[in-house]
Amino acid sequence: MFKIKVISVGKTKEAWLKEALDAYSQRLKATVSMEWVLLKNVQQLNDAVKKEPFYICLDPNGKAYSSEGFSTFLFQQLIAQGARLTFVIGGPEGIPQEIIRKASFLLSFSQMTFTHQMIRLLLLEQLYRAIEIHKGTAYHK
Amino acid sequence: MFKIKVISVGKTKEAWLKEALDAYSQRLKATVSMEWVLLKNVQQLNDAVKKEPFYICLDPNGKAYSSEGFSTFLFQQLIAQGARLTFVIGGPEGIPQEIIRKASFLLSFSQMTFTHQMIRLLLLEQLYRAIEIHKGTAYHK
Repeated sequence: MFKIKVISVGKTKEAWLKEALDAYSQRLKATVSMEWVLLKNVQQLNDAVKKEPFYICLDPNGKAYSSEGFSTFLFQQLIAQGARLTFVIGGPEGIPQEIIRKASFLLSFSQMTFTHQMIRLLLLEQLYRAIEIHKGTAYHK
Repeated sequence: MFKIKVISVGKTKEAWLKEALDAYSQRLKATVSMEWVLLKNVQQLNDAVKKEPFYICLDPNGKAYSSEGFSTFLFQQLIAQGARLTFVIGGPEGIPQEIIRKASFLLSFSQMTFTHQMIRLLLLEQLYRAIEIHKGTAYHK
């Protein structure tokens, strides 16, 4: 069982987004145990991230992968990090520069900006897709 | 009022996605009238697209913009095309090569692959964001 932690700011607001995240968490649960650390503000985000020895920031200036490339990257990192990984998604004001600077890796899902809320869904969908690609199922075709 | 048509294959399946699309359509409705042409299969997609003199395909190999770049592109195209635009999103099997080849423009939202269903939401969110950027509001900050 892999453990993936997501640290971000703000509760999940919209009902549809909660439903979508639940649906993907359900699909992931045979392989991944998800932990959501949703904080109140940037100060709390700073404090929480300081305790992480290794974390990946989702940032538009990070490295862009295809879904296949992300799958390879994800499993390399999961193996290197003992089956645990932490992702950091910014809040409404993005990610503080200090957190970006100390990140183990910057990952870009798109050159476009999406709401930090919607990025949660994009991350879950890509985690699920990455696992299906790794397994060799037809989901990603 | 701008008119934006989206041509794709397959009804919107998940309840959460319907809710999300409704929420963004609602936000867009002061500026954009959305028309969804959701077809049953690739043959119908081919037939529908043939009638379009100008259409933009969402394709991972297309041009990638930042949200600001997409906003500029969108308004240039809306002006050039008389306030009407058509986007084509592939079905589960992607977009047929013939449709890609004849496209007026190929646009990429991400090097990653997302479900063709979820792309509907990404498109609406970026349309809304593009309009807010154009208006100069704080939404996209």
